[in-house]
Amino acid sequence: MADITPVLERADANLPKSLERLFDLVRIKSISTDPAFKLECRKAAEWLLAELNALGFTASVRDTPGHPMVVAHHDAAMASAPHLLFYGHYDVQPVDPLNLWDAPPFEPAIKEVEPGRKVITGRGTADDKGQLMTFVEAVRAYKETQGALPCRITILFEGEEESGSPSLKPFLEANAAELKADYALVCDTSMWDRETPAISAGLRGLVGEEIIVKAADRDLHSGYFGGAAANPIHILADILAGLHDETGRVTLNNFYDGVEETPAQIKAAWETLGQTAEKFLGEIGLSIPSGEKGRSVLELTWARPTAEVNGITGGYTGEGFKTVIAAQASAKVSFRLVGNQDPAKIRETFRAYARSKIPADCSVEFHAHGASPAIHLPYDSALLNTAKFALSDEWPRPAVVIGMGGSIPIVGDFQKMLGMESLLVGFGLSDDRIHSPNEKYELQSFHKGIRSWIRILDALAA
Amino acid sequence: MADITPVLERADANLPKSLERLFDLVRIKSISTDPAFKLECRKAAEWLLAELNALGFTASVRDTPGHPMVVAHHDAAMASAPHLLFYGHYDVQPVDPLNLWDAPPFEPAIKEVEPGRKVITGRGTADDKGQLMTFVEAVRAYKETQGALPCRITILFEGEEESGSPSLKPFLEANAAELKADYALVCDTSMWDRETPAISAGLRGLVGEEIIVKAADRDLHSGYFGGAAANPIHILADILAGLHDETGRVTLNNFYDGVEETPAQIKAAWETLGQTAEKFLGEIGLSIPSGEKGRSVLELTWARPTAEVNGITGGYTGEGFKTVIAAQASAKVSFRLVGNQDPAKIRETFRAYARSKIPADCSVEFHAHGASPAIHLPYDSALLNTAKFALSDEWPRPAVVIGMGGSIPIVGDFQKMLGMESLLVGFGLSDDRIHSPNEKYELQSFHKGIRSWIRILDALAA
Repeated sequence: MADITPVLERADANLPKSLERLFDLVRIKSISTDPAFKLECRKAAEWLLAELNALGFTASVRDTPGHPMVVAHHDAAMASAPHLLFYGHYDVQPVDPLNLWDAPPFEPAIKEVEPGRKVITGRGTADDKGQLMTFVEAVRAYKETQGALPCRITILFEGEEESGSPSLKPFLEANAAELKADYALVCDTSMWDRETPAISAGLRGLVGEEIIVKAADRDLHSGYFGGAAANPIHILADILAGLHDETGRVTLNNFYDGVEETPAQIKAAWETLGQTAEKFLGEIGLSIPSGEKGRSVLELTWARPTAEVNGITGGYTGEGFKTVIAAQASAKVSFRLVGNQDPAKIRETFRAYARSKIPADCSVEFHAHGASPAIHLPYDSALLNTAKFALSDEWPRPAVVIGMGGSIPIVGDFQKMLGMESLLVGFGLSDDRIHSPNEKYELQSFHKGIRSWIRILDALAA
Repeated sequence: MADITPVLERADANLPKSLERLFDLVRIKSISTDPAFKLECRKAAEWLLAELNALGFTASVRDTPGHPMVVAHHDAAMASAPHLLFYGHYDVQPVDPLNLWDAPPFEPAIKEVEPGRKVITGRGTADDKGQLMTFVEAVRAYKETQGALPCRITILFEGEEESGSPSLKPFLEANAAELKADYALVCDTSMWDRETPAISAGLRGLVGEEIIVKAADRDLHSGYFGGAAANPIHILADILAGLHDETGRVTLNNFYDGVEETPAQIKAAWETLGQTAEKFLGEIGLSIPSGEKGRSVLELTWARPTAEVNGITGGYTGEGFKTVIAAQASAKVSFRLVGNQDPAKIRETFRAYARSKIPADCSVEFHAHGASPAIHLPYDSALLNTAKFALSDEWPRPAVVIGMGGSIPIVGDFQKMLGMESLLVGFGLSDDRIHSPNEKYELQSFHKGIRSWIRILDALAA
């Protein structure tokens, strides 16, 4: 490996300007899910285009049916170095409820939250503008000190991650040859804790499903009809209550097909993290794991599938009381998948189960809301181990390999469509309030994140 | 009995003007449950005050901690005539969902729904503005033709019936001497069918209860926390699903204490009405009785208690999908009571049952929304029989004495607090869509309802 001290020092010296650039990007209101911000999304793409061109990339903004992609290429100093595809997204979540923000969401600022600990506040600082800029600034430090990059780099910035990435798959398909690299680097995940960097090696899949139970052809007075007319809320409650047995297991037929027990050595590695239900749940005001009995919270959220009701509505929900029997009731249900669980089969099994609970004079409708299988990255590949050592050099504590409860569908697409292994490294923290008011990114995450990529690029080049 | 032909003819001649007056009252948006409509409730009370004063009543609007009462007195032509207390309510149900109305709810209109059959459309036309105005217009026809009334009449119009009548009991207590009459007339019920008037002789009681299950201290991302964090919608669904067993019986401990089997002769009388599940439920697009197995729909709705969920909400219920685990979920639950079921005990039993299902790190809150026991009126009193004959003179088919699934708590208060027997006569129909979009009142109900009260007043005076 080369002596990267000058590169790291340049990153340190650049920090004030790096922050200014991040602030410029955060000020762009690139909310992808709201059509009112369409032009802001393009503005963010153009801003990134200009930055990458200035760094010597061959960059372009590519139109899609939705928001544009930014694609950029840069050669390596040595032809033998690996080719890396870096992925991030420039779009952000909506900001409502606005009144819960302490400061305007698109006016980034540095705030000292305790002596010696500063955070960058604003929508998108952690998810994902601050994270993607750690990589851009790492590249800058290389270019400014070495005049070259240690690896060949292709960058892909997406603008629809927060709205389901509808254009991503077709774009990967249409541009497979251009985007295919040796490895993909994805910077949209979190550290284990403030001192411990993490590489995410498992992501749960997701099946989203809306169910609407319909009974009478109109809302009824519960005095006239109560006791004789079917109540769709009862039927729906019965369906939802029946999804779990008393041990917390999901009751759907064959639901656990494709789910394997976590290998003992992985469980053992997780145990060294010292996570407890008290700590994990204590942060959110809870203390007792609610899922399958006899499993740790890490196992429950990283390695076990779930059925969750994400929303329910029916009948009168306003102030006061209304003795109505609703004509319909609906719920949004999602399943987190692990291992080789088949999203399509699980959707069908849920629907068959629900249908079996619908009385003959009532009806049920379903709407699909996305499906992706679980992703498993190798726990001990060369890529992963190289990054692990590089990260451990930068942070107070060695890097850990963790699971991840959420879903990043692009990782599956990289695997299946481009045959690339992904490395998931990010510097977020669990209290960054992504998707919520008062999102923040630790100044340390930004600074040491830049330094981490410098180390990883150097290590991968070797 | 007097010759009432001129009174009936005057009612017929007045009909166009009577409708105009009803329309004026319906235009007032007196939604009692929503504080935004407080002034509209007062406006309805003032409107009734003016009408009653114009008819020669000594009327007043009486403030309460909630919406005001209207009280009015008028002497009889002959001192020997009975003193009647007429009760109705000027408040109406909320109108949401507004998009399901064919026309604005507070712009009443006459609509010909089939040749020769017209209905009056608008919120409150049937419940209860149209009904109470049948009595006011009957009084008007007497005053205009006879210059006097056949009975001494006290009128009590309430403005909180649709929000649990919180002020009613204290008001009756404070004004017992003024309100005590020989009999109470209550016009807030339905006919048996389009041709058959009905007197209601049994009313189910009601316990209204709101339950709020609270888990984490904020909404959670179901990727990070799903499988480990308690989901309040699951807990609530489990509580609600557990309220009934597979035979349709309510499972709460001792719930059926005080519930007696309907006497054979009453069941036999009900059988002559020729009601079937197909007919009763067919009107609302259903066909299979959903409650306790092996009982007729009349028994289920008139003589059996129920537990119904009237509303439920939690998590994300908007367009699309959001993988959130809600911080809380809530439901509105009501129990219809019969016989001697004790409302207070049933509320406590429900709360104890729900609490037993709350995990130790979650919490539950309850809000009471009214409680009234079931009411049983005599099936063969002089009052009832007199009204029965009078009604049978007006309508194509003889009047029938029926049970009633709904709850009119005031009837119990009249009985217990003022020692008055009540006569429950109303001209609603089961398809009036009270509490629902597109509420209507049959023009025939309004017209023949006025004529019915003329006959009843005459018969009671005799």
